Amino acid sequence: MAGAGDKRPGGEFDLIAKLVQRAGEPATGERLRVGIGDDAAVTVVEGATVTSVDMLVDGVHFRRATSSLREIGRKALSVALSDLAAMGARPGEAYVALGLPSDLDEARCLELYGGLGEVAAETATTLAGGDVSAAPALTLAVTVVGYAPTPERLVGRSGARAGHALAVTGDLGGAAAGLLIIERPALRAGLDPAVTEALARRQTDPTPRLAAGAALAGAGAAAMIDLSDGLGADAAQIAAASEAWLRIELDRLPLAAGVAEVAAAAGVDPIDVATAGGEDYELLVAIAPQRVSETVAAVEATGTTLTVVGEVSEGEGVELRGADGGRRPARGFDHFDAR
Amino acid sequence: MAGAGDKRPGGEFDLIAKLVQRAGEPATGERLRVGIGDDAAVTVVEGATVTSVDMLVDGVHFRRATSSLREIGRKALSVALSDLAAMGARPGEAYVALGLPSDLDEARCLELYGGLGEVAAETATTLAGGDVSAAPALTLAVTVVGYAPTPERLVGRSGARAGHALAVTGDLGGAAAGLLIIERPALRAGLDPAVTEALARRQTDPTPRLAAGAALAGAGAAAMIDLSDGLGADAAQIAAASEAWLRIELDRLPLAAGVAEVAAAAGVDPIDVATAGGEDYELLVAIAPQRVSETVAAVEATGTTLTVVGEVSEGEGVELRGADGGRRPARGFDHFDAR
Repeated sequence: MAGAGDKRPGGEFDLIAKLVQRAGEPATGERLRVGIGDDAAVTVVEGATVTSVDMLVDGVHFRRATSSLREIGRKALSVALSDLAAMGARPGEAYVALGLPSDLDEARCLELYGGLGEVAAETATTLAGGDVSAAPALTLAVTVVGYAPTPERLVGRSGARAGHALAVTGDLGGAAAGLLIIERPALRAGLDPAVTEALARRQTDPTPRLAAGAALAGAGAAAMIDLSDGLGADAAQIAAASEAWLRIELDRLPLAAGVAEVAAAAGVDPIDVATAGGEDYELLVAIAPQRVSETVAAVEATGTTLTVVGEVSEGEGVELRGADGGRRPARGFDHFDAR
Repeated sequence: MAGAGDKRPGGEFDLIAKLVQRAGEPATGERLRVGIGDDAAVTVVEGATVTSVDMLVDGVHFRRATSSLREIGRKALSVALSDLAAMGARPGEAYVALGLPSDLDEARCLELYGGLGEVAAETATTLAGGDVSAAPALTLAVTVVGYAPTPERLVGRSGARAGHALAVTGDLGGAAAGLLIIERPALRAGLDPAVTEALARRQTDPTPRLAAGAALAGAGAAAMIDLSDGLGADAAQIAAASEAWLRIELDRLPLAAGVAEVAAAAGVDPIDVATAGGEDYELLVAIAPQRVSETVAAVEATGTTLTVVGEVSEGEGVELRGADGGRRPARGFDHFDAR
């Protein structure tokens, strides 16, 4: 079902109704004609529709031991919305399927849904439907739908061409450094608590770069992807889709504050943290060289920095090159590496 | 992500690429502009869009011990499409998020996705994106998107009015009787194997009533719902949304072949099997009295029967009335009853 606010009292359907109430009743309007409460949601749309689905599972994408349910709800919707940001779409509706373990009572479900509702409100996304099931581990499958005036206005992965500049929004490595200090609290010793707290939040509460993504699409970015798996792995996506060679200069990477210190404390290379750690949910874009300065200005007008970190040339693949000319493998995090 | 066919070799992304290949490459066209292989799928649509999401979890909605992975894939997409049938929408795209336990190797994932692909092909649904995660139990979250020329052409739950006839497509109780014989194979003794096989298939491989739903919408059905939780519980949804009293005559219910025999062997009432068992995925509709005969003809032209089983009157609620005038509670199956 999509809408399910009105099933019989007690049990599953009553819970969905309460969850929706907690998140705020969706306002039906020009686009959303039927929300919660029928077999499916109904929209009437002009232009292009963008749809993406993400599944988050306890122990894989988050840990209930170290994240609050509110944070888990926030992260699930933010991660899904990051795919819309990476297309340059503006968010519209979200549909949330929840798999709930038996220890999650109603109050805790409402806490989870409260987190979803916060991000929905912050991003002008309407929670328009969902489903609830029993499950052995907390599971959230979030489908997000976004919009653009025309399909041409959206930015895919395949438009990177030789001579384009490569740039990233914001800063890198924060989410991976945050994970390190969450898993090894001793690493906080001697570091500024405000900095370590900000790093932990990068891991537990990422920000989808929706305004920056829209600005990049509006400025004519040629190719774009969000950094979910790590700069190296995600750059490889653009390289494969564009049939291009992406050279990234490691000494130009904007590292998040505290990444160097956490990496030093953990005995790992901060560049590995920034390129292979993943989950920063910043955007990597290819930009025609004559558009770089106006594009930087357009993104900075949204309150996010845009840093040129390399360029595109002929060939196919990714090169991460240090200041000394040395190269590194462009590897990232894969949920199945450990299997 | 929505599209993910092109991520780096090995691991999660390679698996998605193979799954999609197994299901058949989505043909991009007038509506679907970007399918698998980018951050999100892109569509351009006229008219009304209908979106629904369903989550199915091993041990709750199916059992790997008694269903093949192909059957599980088929059922997951069919159940999701049933919500589109219940609106009278024609199917468009499906997005599948898979949570995979560690014992599901690549070959078994392909079997699962093969089942999804079969139903997609049978129903003209395009598998346009998805996500894959590790999970403790096999989990499928399926988002389906359907279309109609206008929102007015879709049929919600709230249009039932006093004087309307109530009718159901096909026949009832087959899925619940099928579950009984799957869980207690001894019940098959003495029954026609063709009949018990058909009942088991009603449980493991339900058919979304897409053509009948479209015919009902075209014939002007006033309210409609698919029977996922049992006739009594689902009728209560229409009663609540329409603020109407739904009286269903139990002796008019079209029971599936073999339901009476399986119920007798199991020592349960066949009417309980038909009204409370759920998962038949037939449609319950309210029809203005002057339109009943043309509506029956329109549905039967799709190859599905439509049987009048009661009527709508003033009030709010559901009455299941036997031939002797006795009433039964309108209860259904709830995944949380046991919690």
